[in-house]
Amino acid sequence: MCGIVGVSGVERAAEQAFLGLYALQHRGQEAAGIAAIRDGEMRVHKAHGLIIEGFHDQELRSLDGTVALGHTRYSTAGGAGLHNAQPIHVRYHQGDLALVHNGNLTNAKVLRDRLVSEGALFQSTVDSEVIVHLIARSRKPTVDEQIQDALGQLIGAFSVIITVGTTMYAARDPWGIRPLVLGRKSEGGWVLASETCALDLIGAEMECPLNPGELLKIEDGMVTYLPGLKPADRPAPCIFELIYFARPDSRVWGASVDRARREFGRQLAREHPVDADCVFSVPDSSNSAALGFSEESGIPFELGLIRNHYVGRTFIHPTQTGRDFRVRIKYNTVREVIDGKRVVVVDDSLVRGTTSRGLISLIREAGAKEVHFRVSSPPVISPCFYGIDMPTRDELIGAQMSVDQIREHLNVDSLGYLSLEGMNNAVRQYGPFCDACFSGNYAAPLVDLTYRSKCG
Amino acid sequence: MCGIVGVSGVERAAEQAFLGLYALQHRGQEAAGIAAIRDGEMRVHKAHGLIIEGFHDQELRSLDGTVALGHTRYSTAGGAGLHNAQPIHVRYHQGDLALVHNGNLTNAKVLRDRLVSEGALFQSTVDSEVIVHLIARSRKPTVDEQIQDALGQLIGAFSVIITVGTTMYAARDPWGIRPLVLGRKSEGGWVLASETCALDLIGAEMECPLNPGELLKIEDGMVTYLPGLKPADRPAPCIFELIYFARPDSRVWGASVDRARREFGRQLAREHPVDADCVFSVPDSSNSAALGFSEESGIPFELGLIRNHYVGRTFIHPTQTGRDFRVRIKYNTVREVIDGKRVVVVDDSLVRGTTSRGLISLIREAGAKEVHFRVSSPPVISPCFYGIDMPTRDELIGAQMSVDQIREHLNVDSLGYLSLEGMNNAVRQYGPFCDACFSGNYAAPLVDLTYRSKCG
Amino acid sequence: MCGIVGVSGVERAAEQAFLGLYALQHRGQEAAGIAAIRDGEMRVHKAHGLIIEGFHDQELRSLDGTVALGHTRYSTAGGAGLHNAQPIHVRYHQGDLALVHNGNLTNAKVLRDRLVSEGALFQSTVDSEVIVHLIARSRKPTVDEQIQDALGQLIGAFSVIITVGTTMYAARDPWGIRPLVLGRKSEGGWVLASETCALDLIGAEMECPLNPGELLKIEDGMVTYLPGLKPADRPAPCIFELIYFARPDSRVWGASVDRARREFGRQLAREHPVDADCVFSVPDSSNSAALGFSEESGIPFELGLIRNHYVGRTFIHPTQTGRDFRVRIKYNTVREVIDGKRVVVVDDSLVRGTTSRGLISLIREAGAKEVHFRVSSPPVISPCFYGIDMPTRDELIGAQMSVDQIREHLNVDSLGYLSLEGMNNAVRQYGPFCDACFSGNYAAPLVDLTYRSKCG
Amino acid sequence: MCGIVGVSGVERAAEQAFLGLYALQHRGQEAAGIAAIRDGEMRVHKAHGLIIEGFHDQELRSLDGTVALGHTRYSTAGGAGLHNAQPIHVRYHQGDLALVHNGNLTNAKVLRDRLVSEGALFQSTVDSEVIVHLIARSRKPTVDEQIQDALGQLIGAFSVIITVGTTMYAARDPWGIRPLVLGRKSEGGWVLASETCALDLIGAEMECPLNPGELLKIEDGMVTYLPGLKPADRPAPCIFELIYFARPDSRVWGASVDRARREFGRQLAREHPVDADCVFSVPDSSNSAALGFSEESGIPFELGLIRNHYVGRTFIHPTQTGRDFRVRIKYNTVREVIDGKRVVVVDDSLVRGTTSRGLISLIREAGAKEVHFRVSSPPVISPCFYGIDMPTRDELIGAQMSVDQIREHLNVDSLGYLSLEGMNNAVRQYGPFCDACFSGNYAAPLVDLTYRSKCG
Repeated sequence: MCGIVGVSGVERAAEQAFLGLYALQHRGQEAAGIAAIRDGEMRVHKAHGLIIEGFHDQELRSLDGTVALGHTRYSTAGGAGLHNAQPIHVRYHQGDLALVHNGNLTNAKVLRDRLVSEGALFQSTVDSEVIVHLIARSRKPTVDEQIQDALGQLIGAFSVIITVGTTMYAARDPWGIRPLVLGRKSEGGWVLASETCALDLIGAEMECPLNPGELLKIEDGMVTYLPGLKPADRPAPCIFELIYFARPDSRVWGASVDRARREFGRQLAREHPVDADCVFSVPDSSNSAALGFSEESGIPFELGLIRNHYVGRTFIHPTQTGRDFRVRIKYNTVREVIDGKRVVVVDDSLVRGTTSRGLISLIREAGAKEVHFRVSSPPVISPCFYGIDMPTRDELIGAQMSVDQIREHLNVDSLGYLSLEGMNNAVRQYGPFCDACFSGNYAAPLVDLTYRSKCG
Repeated sequence: MCGIVGVSGVERAAEQAFLGLYALQHRGQEAAGIAAIRDGEMRVHKAHGLIIEGFHDQELRSLDGTVALGHTRYSTAGGAGLHNAQPIHVRYHQGDLALVHNGNLTNAKVLRDRLVSEGALFQSTVDSEVIVHLIARSRKPTVDEQIQDALGQLIGAFSVIITVGTTMYAARDPWGIRPLVLGRKSEGGWVLASETCALDLIGAEMECPLNPGELLKIEDGMVTYLPGLKPADRPAPCIFELIYFARPDSRVWGASVDRARREFGRQLAREHPVDADCVFSVPDSSNSAALGFSEESGIPFELGLIRNHYVGRTFIHPTQTGRDFRVRIKYNTVREVIDGKRVVVVDDSLVRGTTSRGLISLIREAGAKEVHFRVSSPPVISPCFYGIDMPTRDELIGAQMSVDQIREHLNVDSLGYLSLEGMNNAVRQYGPFCDACFSGNYAAPLVDLTYRSKCG
Repeated sequence: MCGIVGVSGVERAAEQAFLGLYALQHRGQEAAGIAAIRDGEMRVHKAHGLIIEGFHDQELRSLDGTVALGHTRYSTAGGAGLHNAQPIHVRYHQGDLALVHNGNLTNAKVLRDRLVSEGALFQSTVDSEVIVHLIARSRKPTVDEQIQDALGQLIGAFSVIITVGTTMYAARDPWGIRPLVLGRKSEGGWVLASETCALDLIGAEMECPLNPGELLKIEDGMVTYLPGLKPADRPAPCIFELIYFARPDSRVWGASVDRARREFGRQLAREHPVDADCVFSVPDSSNSAALGFSEESGIPFELGLIRNHYVGRTFIHPTQTGRDFRVRIKYNTVREVIDGKRVVVVDDSLVRGTTSRGLISLIREAGAKEVHFRVSSPPVISPCFYGIDMPTRDELIGAQMSVDQIREHLNVDSLGYLSLEGMNNAVRQYGPFCDACFSGNYAAPLVDLTYRSKCG
Repeated sequence: MCGIVGVSGVERAAEQAFLGLYALQHRGQEAAGIAAIRDGEMRVHKAHGLIIEGFHDQELRSLDGTVALGHTRYSTAGGAGLHNAQPIHVRYHQGDLALVHNGNLTNAKVLRDRLVSEGALFQSTVDSEVIVHLIARSRKPTVDEQIQDALGQLIGAFSVIITVGTTMYAARDPWGIRPLVLGRKSEGGWVLASETCALDLIGAEMECPLNPGELLKIEDGMVTYLPGLKPADRPAPCIFELIYFARPDSRVWGASVDRARREFGRQLAREHPVDADCVFSVPDSSNSAALGFSEESGIPFELGLIRNHYVGRTFIHPTQTGRDFRVRIKYNTVREVIDGKRVVVVDDSLVRGTTSRGLISLIREAGAKEVHFRVSSPPVISPCFYGIDMPTRDELIGAQMSVDQIREHLNVDSLGYLSLEGMNNAVRQYGPFCDACFSGNYAAPLVDLTYRSKCG
């Protein structure tokens, strides 16, 4: 997953982009980058790690201009080198071009192989680079058409922001898998961002989300909608954004993330009631769901786990010290809350199950009499090919074990997952959604997957 | 404030000290340091910033030995240079000596002036350095007596851990102002730390806290209690540790920090009841108190504020953008929780009032119908001279304004502080306490203060 | 100017390439890079500054493999960013390709514009990048032919070494403007380098220089000559390599550089005799010529100028301090040699004249009675377009002033340049040469120059 | 060995100190430091490596003030940490004090042990730190007397510059072992430096050298001579400064270094004549002596060895490659000069003999018919205890072998050392000198040596 932001028509636009990325930091901590343009001259700075680590006064001052775009990158398969960080920036026959991309293309390999065989030279291993090659090689006469031509060849998930010179373009894939919203600053200027929490910090008002397949252009302070891509018959916004990825203070898919999670928690309580002394969350992403569970069940809400927020990307692992060490580094129990109690632990999702297992062992050590584990989403049974970093099916505990086996594996007294139906119903008014990771039902075709199995 | 840790009789002791500091990171983020000793040879590494930023595999491997001590430093008056970071390490006539200190001496200036006039050369501007000069200049024949001699001249707050060669010493001031606990690893070896959460991560069992004035020595796996300092007539452990400073999963002064805060919240609800739709905390330090308030009042607990945990030490402040910007960088509101509601906001303490004022402005912007501010401690009216970093009296809102004026200044519908009596009663069984910042009643004499006003 | 080196069939080839670049450091100090290949996997490291500054144990160990190539870059117009440093490395449809290039193409702009209009995306601003695009886009079926195809489109100066997988290619332009020699290690393995001094340090025996237009391939320990490029009717090796650029312990164009310079000095003494007390050089590049002058004239050789070798690339220029400051930073006079004497100063060439002017002012300050300036090459009247970094004609003192005017400008008692004829005669047996910078007579067509003046 | 510089009464004094250190870089490349004072506030910057590597615009600008002193440090026994670099700077009861020291005390251990037993805490392992402790502990009432008191307790070699507040002091030991000269800037302001070449670059006129035991003070633009130390009966300036250490363009001990070396070379030719085809030096330190040898003998001077000046402090040593590798990295032969010839090689001194042996092997490889080795100083038979970094007697080839054995060991056809008498005679008018390393005759008592052998 990644976070993207674009700013147009604002003095010192890079500083606004910086704030946007800072608000979107939860979408990716591996690397950050900002490109800024003044008078058609582009400057780019990228750095490993958090946005506040890599961008200081000096860097921001050098990123002069009224147009800027930024990207914060999650650790993914492409590799961690800065050449894989975004914005991707190139000089092509129409001028300086920069691009940021959230999502994952499902035909990148097919496109890349074709481009390479034609003599294209790639600088990175990320799927997003095919987009700039397609634009540069388009035979269409205008930049507008070149971009439209290139985007039309893509399959999969893409929310993109592109600049050519000082003109900014933004688009979403026909399925509308990843979010992208447009905001406006009251003093003038436009902002594009993955989530509304970025608009809040930048001080922009939400104008509207981009629709599936929509392509817009910002130039001289004006937003124009260009002929875009034909929307898919059935839009498929990612439901995992609501469950885990987005910030609770954001609105995504028209829904308040906090309210959606609260509703998942309530529904979970209805589906898997239990007699217990307290309920607490795995902080912080499950807080809302745990509160919803508490409200619906009447079981008192507690703070049973403390999370250490100083965990860095580079935490070293001493030779130490028992199998739950990685969990202990991040969480500690509040013994007084747990000791002698029948506790309900609410987590937002269960992917590999390793962390949960460690947590439960800590909770038992702190003296819990009974541990009831509740997950505010269905079993993850199939990887995401649209941009969420997930392990292969072999490592997905939901794909490898029955619920009963998982309960035993986690060593809990009871285990309850939110049902697929319950989840979709809870946010029905904002759907339908892509729930492929829970259902195996993929909206956009998995072209590379077929291609790979054919070509080896 | 600072966090300190000592490890003795454990292979790769520096790695354990690292874990201890990591758990104590909330006590200071400005700089961290570890000293390790093998065969009487000491190695020291210090770095600015978080422990995980400055200590990687390479540094830890170079810190060989079975004895180690560590320190994490809060930003304080001494200045930010690494020469002011601890451990302080010197070679004196009895060998290599290292020292870590939590607390603040109230006669450091008097001692320092005397030492300087005798020709002592100081390397830092921190008060703790006087201790090593006093040890080095003691005329007593043994190390034990030299340390006792030196500590006997100190007034104020000090929890210290000292190594001379591979022998470790630990002591607390006669008033017992700052915490220090002794733990034991089941496989052998001793651990000293500011809070029990460090023992938890290191995997050591709490053995006992050190008593006021106590001086102990660890050598060859044995703990010996030496003749210490005469305890003050009335011990004065810092109550602010329970209110704000310590981690909720620690036990401090015999109390569970979480339970103490819960009780402060309950008492606050009793003292300042209000009719409202929901109660939420200023995360994370006020979570327990807000939950206590909710339990006692029956007003539903909510998550109304989201805190951005990526705020770094070096966050740059763009030219931006309205007076509440520093608050917005750290917090955002969940509009759905607040809009149209009568809300109770619980904060643990009110020092300058700047952040609270900004927060309330955000909360009003999010549509709150009424805002009731509740503080789970009394007004701060007098600075701490024992190691908590506080502004001067001029900047303490509690010292400058009446409660009514503060209510107006914050622009809240009602304001309620926990009473001094209510606070002390809530944790009476663990007291009595130093509550000087709330009462102006200082336990250990403020020697330098008098001296300075005499000498100019 | 640049230095290049290639190593094939030697364990830890990158270390050998490192030594080669170290010996060629005088050919460029701005940046250095090495690519190494093991089992078809390529690793590249580049760094600003000297080879010994940017390549330490760790970097060299990571550059595993039996095939390596390296480049050391002079400051040139392309800009100082590392993306402009070499080796250029790309992945194209035939595998990993790396390239190092010494020289300058005279049709790079024409080629680049054509490639860009076809949609090629360039990553750098250096002329050498067109070569890899030409290879990647060649329609020829084999790598051998693709390379030949690409090289056949180039005009100007190029000595290149290329790897595709573990196969190494080397070639020189049809005019043979820049040097490239092949050496062999007695224990097996091949080495390519700009100068023989690199072979000396690597411990390789000189096998043969590459001829103009020659293209060879090294694979599995065998050297194969491929059909190359048609040699120009009149080869044009650069005479400036002998005059200034190459190291005196190298053999270039079949000549000992030291002997060639000695001969230039002797001829200079014959052409411009003078009655004087001593002769000294501008160290170190003019040492050989000054010695030749002394031998021929019988005037005693002296050491009148001391050069400070600690001048770094990043020397700061304090607000200081008179117009000769930049010269003083680098040179100081030995007053005892100069005071009261009639001195002959020998320099290898006169480009802008700024340094010489400063030097002469220093020499006069040291008490010289007469200063006779002798230059062991003719006036530079026209820029080099084949890879030597020179100012434009406007800044060439030899193009702007008569010899008499220069004599006055430098404030010397007499000035003598080596004649064009005298220079060529001195090394006639190794020629003919390109002497365009002295004669304006360019061997390879200046395509971009015409193109630019046409297109603006 | 080290280089020191002091600047007083000049705007941006640190920049002048920087230039001075740059000119003195040959006296030490391990670390450099500058202290600057404005209004009694001192700022210090130290860095590993060359002065130009560690001091950039930013650092120099931060070193504000009209008084500055600097130090460049040679690799010595104290260890390479920056805490061992100078200026030493402390705050004592009279204010900020900084000190730079060239030379080596012979009673540092005795003084240090006494100070430590009195409770002094040392921060470094360098001998120079005892001086600041002695000043700080002096019972004398004024700074002038405190400094005089401290210096009076020192034995051995010391040229020091000290600042207290903005007052600068400078002194030399009673034997006058290390150089120190005073210069004056024509526009006002004073400069102190180890060698006159530093004055040249700073643009200061030589005023006078400091005499043995002299102590002066610079304040408000005035130089005052204080009561100093009683000069030794027989002054003993180091003759090795003339032979090897100083720059040839400096004047040291009243002599031109170049002329002195020239005379050593002439005398060497008289003492050890030989029939040969050419003479060349081991560049650069032996250039003057080789030229002297050539003049006296009539054997033509040649450039037979090329030195690579890019050898850095951190040169890595690949697994490579024959025993002469370290020599090859630094030197290469000019085959055309050597092949088939009877050559005389002149070196300035022979310490361990390792480099010379490697060089001769290279020269033989280049085809020399006969190799005659000439050393322009006597055999080094005894270590220097006054500041020149030398191996112990066990590693001094002159102390372990007869001249005949050395000749065989080096594999030369003949070997000739300059005689002790010949050396002293050549520079008699500037003497007498300390020639302890050649004669074993030490001027200043070796107190620590006796003390150590007594105490173990």
